[in-house]
Amino acid sequence: MGNCFFSQDKNTNVRVSLPAVCFVWEIAMVVLFGIFVRYNEEADAHWGEYKKTHNITTDMENDFYYRYPSFQDVHVMIFVGFGFLMTFLKRYSFGAVGFTFLIAAFGLQWALLMQGWFHSLDYSTGKILIGIENLINADFCCGGVLIAFGALLGKVSPVQMMVVSLFGVTLYAVEEYIILNLLHCRDAGGSMVIHTFGGYYGLAISWILYRPNLNKSKHLNGSVYHSDLFAMIGTLFLWLFWPSFNSAIANHGDGQHRAAINTYISLAASVVTAVAISSMTEKRGKLDMVHIQNATLAGGVAMGASAEFMISPYGSLIVGFFCGIISTFGFKFVSPFLEKHLKLQDTCGIHNLHAVPGMLGGFISAIVAAMASESVYSKEGLIATLGLEGNYANRGAGTQGGYQAAGTCVAMVFGIVGGAIVGLILKLPIWGDPADDNCFDDEVYWEVPEDEESIPPVLEYNNHMAHKHQDRCDSNYNLEQL
Amino acid sequence: MGNCFFSQDKNTNVRVSLPAVCFVWEIAMVVLFGIFVRYNEEADAHWGEYKKTHNITTDMENDFYYRYPSFQDVHVMIFVGFGFLMTFLKRYSFGAVGFTFLIAAFGLQWALLMQGWFHSLDYSTGKILIGIENLINADFCCGGVLIAFGALLGKVSPVQMMVVSLFGVTLYAVEEYIILNLLHCRDAGGSMVIHTFGGYYGLAISWILYRPNLNKSKHLNGSVYHSDLFAMIGTLFLWLFWPSFNSAIANHGDGQHRAAINTYISLAASVVTAVAISSMTEKRGKLDMVHIQNATLAGGVAMGASAEFMISPYGSLIVGFFCGIISTFGFKFVSPFLEKHLKLQDTCGIHNLHAVPGMLGGFISAIVAAMASESVYSKEGLIATLGLEGNYANRGAGTQGGYQAAGTCVAMVFGIVGGAIVGLILKLPIWGDPADDNCFDDEVYWEVPEDEESIPPVLEYNNHMAHKHQDRCDSNYNLEQL
Amino acid sequence: MGNCFFSQDKNTNVRVSLPAVCFVWEIAMVVLFGIFVRYNEEADAHWGEYKKTHNITTDMENDFYYRYPSFQDVHVMIFVGFGFLMTFLKRYSFGAVGFTFLIAAFGLQWALLMQGWFHSLDYSTGKILIGIENLINADFCCGGVLIAFGALLGKVSPVQMMVVSLFGVTLYAVEEYIILNLLHCRDAGGSMVIHTFGGYYGLAISWILYRPNLNKSKHLNGSVYHSDLFAMIGTLFLWLFWPSFNSAIANHGDGQHRAAINTYISLAASVVTAVAISSMTEKRGKLDMVHIQNATLAGGVAMGASAEFMISPYGSLIVGFFCGIISTFGFKFVSPFLEKHLKLQDTCGIHNLHAVPGMLGGFISAIVAAMASESVYSKEGLIATLGLEGNYANRGAGTQGGYQAAGTCVAMVFGIVGGAIVGLILKLPIWGDPADDNCFDDEVYWEVPEDEESIPPVLEYNNHMAHKHQDRCDSNYNLEQL
Repeated sequence: MGNCFFSQDKNTNVRVSLPAVCFVWEIAMVVLFGIFVRYNEEADAHWGEYKKTHNITTDMENDFYYRYPSFQDVHVMIFVGFGFLMTFLKRYSFGAVGFTFLIAAFGLQWALLMQGWFHSLDYSTGKILIGIENLINADFCCGGVLIAFGALLGKVSPVQMMVVSLFGVTLYAVEEYIILNLLHCRDAGGSMVIHTFGGYYGLAISWILYRPNLNKSKHLNGSVYHSDLFAMIGTLFLWLFWPSFNSAIANHGDGQHRAAINTYISLAASVVTAVAISSMTEKRGKLDMVHIQNATLAGGVAMGASAEFMISPYGSLIVGFFCGIISTFGFKFVSPFLEKHLKLQDTCGIHNLHAVPGMLGGFISAIVAAMASESVYSKEGLIATLGLEGNYANRGAGTQGGYQAAGTCVAMVFGIVGGAIVGLILKLPIWGDPADDNCFDDEVYWEVPEDEESIPPVLEYNNHMAHKHQDRCDSNYNLEQL
Repeated sequence: MGNCFFSQDKNTNVRVSLPAVCFVWEIAMVVLFGIFVRYNEEADAHWGEYKKTHNITTDMENDFYYRYPSFQDVHVMIFVGFGFLMTFLKRYSFGAVGFTFLIAAFGLQWALLMQGWFHSLDYSTGKILIGIENLINADFCCGGVLIAFGALLGKVSPVQMMVVSLFGVTLYAVEEYIILNLLHCRDAGGSMVIHTFGGYYGLAISWILYRPNLNKSKHLNGSVYHSDLFAMIGTLFLWLFWPSFNSAIANHGDGQHRAAINTYISLAASVVTAVAISSMTEKRGKLDMVHIQNATLAGGVAMGASAEFMISPYGSLIVGFFCGIISTFGFKFVSPFLEKHLKLQDTCGIHNLHAVPGMLGGFISAIVAAMASESVYSKEGLIATLGLEGNYANRGAGTQGGYQAAGTCVAMVFGIVGGAIVGLILKLPIWGDPADDNCFDDEVYWEVPEDEESIPPVLEYNNHMAHKHQDRCDSNYNLEQL
Repeated sequence: MGNCFFSQDKNTNVRVSLPAVCFVWEIAMVVLFGIFVRYNEEADAHWGEYKKTHNITTDMENDFYYRYPSFQDVHVMIFVGFGFLMTFLKRYSFGAVGFTFLIAAFGLQWALLMQGWFHSLDYSTGKILIGIENLINADFCCGGVLIAFGALLGKVSPVQMMVVSLFGVTLYAVEEYIILNLLHCRDAGGSMVIHTFGGYYGLAISWILYRPNLNKSKHLNGSVYHSDLFAMIGTLFLWLFWPSFNSAIANHGDGQHRAAINTYISLAASVVTAVAISSMTEKRGKLDMVHIQNATLAGGVAMGASAEFMISPYGSLIVGFFCGIISTFGFKFVSPFLEKHLKLQDTCGIHNLHAVPGMLGGFISAIVAAMASESVYSKEGLIATLGLEGNYANRGAGTQGGYQAAGTCVAMVFGIVGGAIVGLILKLPIWGDPADDNCFDDEVYWEVPEDEESIPPVLEYNNHMAHKHQDRCDSNYNLEQL
């Protein structure tokens, strides 16, 4: 109600723009998929012939069985994990889970194309050949975009998020190609390509879209009891399935196995230290749900690039230990500082959960890679784990470490520069974004049901009381005059 | 309170009937399982011997490892997916999730028997031999029944739902046998046998059980903010695990692989077009949670029968594109029309999410099957994918297409006729169903906790105010007279 | 507010103790992991060499692929299942899900060490070599501790729970070693080692910590509508993934396959009989959410030790049938009795869901094992399933049955004696536990957001009404005097 009053200066009606963007882009997808996308040999009905010509004796060797369980876990993380993690706002839960649904569902289609052109193009036919690994990578790519959404949550329109998604996926595919193919970095769990890029991309956009009067919506920029519980659903599914995230596209066999173990251990340590710092920095030692929902995940982010390496279980424990601390401190002290002094409004604190732990993860992987040796990995294991094959057979472990660090920087630069440009595009006054006093409010873009269970019975009761009272007390008391 | 007053004409006490039905049927299950059900060779302790006699060199070839991850996803869809999707009603969430739990847990036992007699009977011993695929199929069968529950939600008693479940599973097993075995249709994801059947079964029952005065419960036939969020848990787990649903019993290797890819892509397109139509048809372009919770899933339903086929990625995209549109229009325009003019009260709109997209999926599979060719599938692939082996070796792709269409019609007929009969049985006045002014209310069948957090503090406060007031204002104002 | 007033006699400030315990223990973990924990041969980069020397031709034979999907399901059960199951209390949901997160994340690290020393120590190097099975077992171990948490829920401080966790994991590892290695029992799903131990451990602690004045917090010891729904998330994920729980560390092939089938069937029967008893014992036949949330799971607990055995599908059905009944009766009649007459305050009723069904499960496994024969299992199958190899080659099935019963008793004794000792430690007045009138309240250990959505609008409205009234009614009515 107050909203209608204050917000007449902004047109948040997306009845034309949202359907238009959805239809134009979806039709483009149909056309481009028609031209370019086909099944790869493991998903094609010719698989039976392929098996024979490649001496494969069992369907179990189809990559589907190596990766499908992890794929489903990653899929849950992207939609339930990210979606529900962001439901913590008291009146933006529809937007959190609904826009996550929209932008990831669109984003994964565009990612199949963009990543396909870079990684899965069959040059003889000009077709992109997709299989289970492409689905995982498309989900990963959406993860990067959703991280950016975390910084923008409640302040942008769904049309703007579609734009963020389109450019985000595009930038992601390019930086991923540079980092994984040109620099030949190892980044199975995406510390660099997903978290560092996504984190800085979102921060740069949010910085450009700075709203000096955002405190007009301050009363909605917080949680209620049950919204915090919904957010814990997101947190837990992210936390639980992170071993699958970091191992989903790792090497078959020991690679996937080790990545899962390292991530499991690192995440466990993050929880304990995040709880410790949360209690230590709050009055009376009370825990803050913001920290429990977020900083507990830092160990998974930071382990992304090193998950496949022989970092050893205690190495993973140390990574989780420190990242839990750093991330909690970030939420407690750095985010308020950034907002006050750097004009950076970061709704979900992605700076502390993705940007910084992702960047740290990249540099950790540089150190771990540089320290790799044949005695620890075996000759064959070193080649397989660091990918020192083919053109890279002469690259030593130390050099690989340097490239890991370089890759991290590339992800940052792409995030910051790309985000700044996209931010400027989003400043155009055509996207239907909410006014400053209208942020963090589902009313703007959603048909929100009246919560009859809590409010109306009481109002009714009051009205009832008032009427009774009116009749009995005295006649100069008139409801209509209220 | 109002309930007690108005509803004395209906006896909703199920204290005798519900336990009686549960016990009688469960004891019947024990007896029938004792007579009929044993482990199949892959789940029996003789597996070690079986491996030797069949030259199987590794436990990994046990079907368990091909299908168990998909089974668990399907399992989640049935109980969490369907259960929570239906929690959207503001005061029927216990019923939604609780009765789903009950009828699926009973239904799967009866399904193991019914489907077992048709598909897994060892004629030499007269035993049903079960393995992981039987569990998946039993879950599928419960899916069909739960679809029907969607149309009846809030209007029937748990005893009635047990009846719906008993007959539904029975009918399902018969139509499944006709469609899959006699007509030899391909329907890996159940567009026909699950969605078309389940959809029309529920609609027919609901049509027979038409309540002219249902608007007496209108105030409870809607959502509140948090109930819509709970429903999104159901939506997302359905959406995310649908690739597993459609690939769970597909052929090993490329079959499962392709089914997962097609479903993934089709669902993504549904989301984008459902959002577009939702925004386009609401005032001010606002999104409606009903559409986001339901129509986004239409692509998965429609892809059920064709998931395994070489429909190609853009084919999947097109299917999802149109089904998202059709389903959203259904929720917006067709359901109100059906209720007004056809006396069809469909609580969850299963007409738009299951009946129509399922039927479309059946016909799409007819077209795709008819267009299948050796050049696209390879000779071996065509035989394996369309199942043109043994007695069906001479059936061409075109003929198979015809049978796919026929199978869809069989599912519809079974649903409508079976549902009508079951509906008549449910009209008997012995089942404890709620009165018209008592629908959509958990109070009828559940011990519902008082929500002290929201209501009582306020009421207390009011009482307090009233008392104070009484003392001070004047003496002719008396609370007891209120 | 009331809290501050009444509870000045108890210091619940954990600002020093909680961070101190977290840091000291986590640093100990880093040191101990550094000294002891390494990857096993299937997770180590030497896997390539290992494959060659062991004639393994495919990465698919890595144990990771046999067990990872089940591991992830178990992981979800521990954190989402247990965590959300306990959110049923109206104002202790943060504590339920948050402390579960903390104690399981710490517990699994300590479990990797404790269980590692007993089961995975490489004597030549003195290192614990971990792989996917260790992660599953560590999660199992945390399950035991979380069962104990169920009895203590709302009445202990997070520091106390860390102590319960440290000692619980330690005791668990010892009793597990005695039961599985010394007595050589079979207990794939942990009826004995997890549920019997965890149940009696929690009950013993709770008995020692008896609070005569706990009824001061009675108003918070109950659910509200939405907290019951959150709890159903926990229930369903436990129920759905229990087949993975009982099959996760079963034998490859038929062992895992059969364990999943047996558990699936047993759980289905539990639901039906729990519903029957719940309806039968409540007035007007209404269902009680407590029973639906808990007793439905009894079949999974009781099937733990026999899941791998050839108990046959109807055997599983019978186990679930009776355990659903026994557990529901327990919640209805035994728990109140225990509280009144044995001074045993068991918040979640673990007596009825874990202690008793776990113990029954142990004894059922004794009977089933004793009845095992070569004709049912095959010679090879009997050896593999009952583990009658090596030193135990001469042990007959009957003897094995005796040991199964003995193992159950060992678990009980460890639980009761260990719990009593830990309970006495927790009575020390240094742990920051809440006062009797402060239990079941998140305010004590959490920064709880004000629920602006429900309360303030109404209060504001009332104030508004009151003010209006004050102005109009008469002047001797003064808000400040209220």
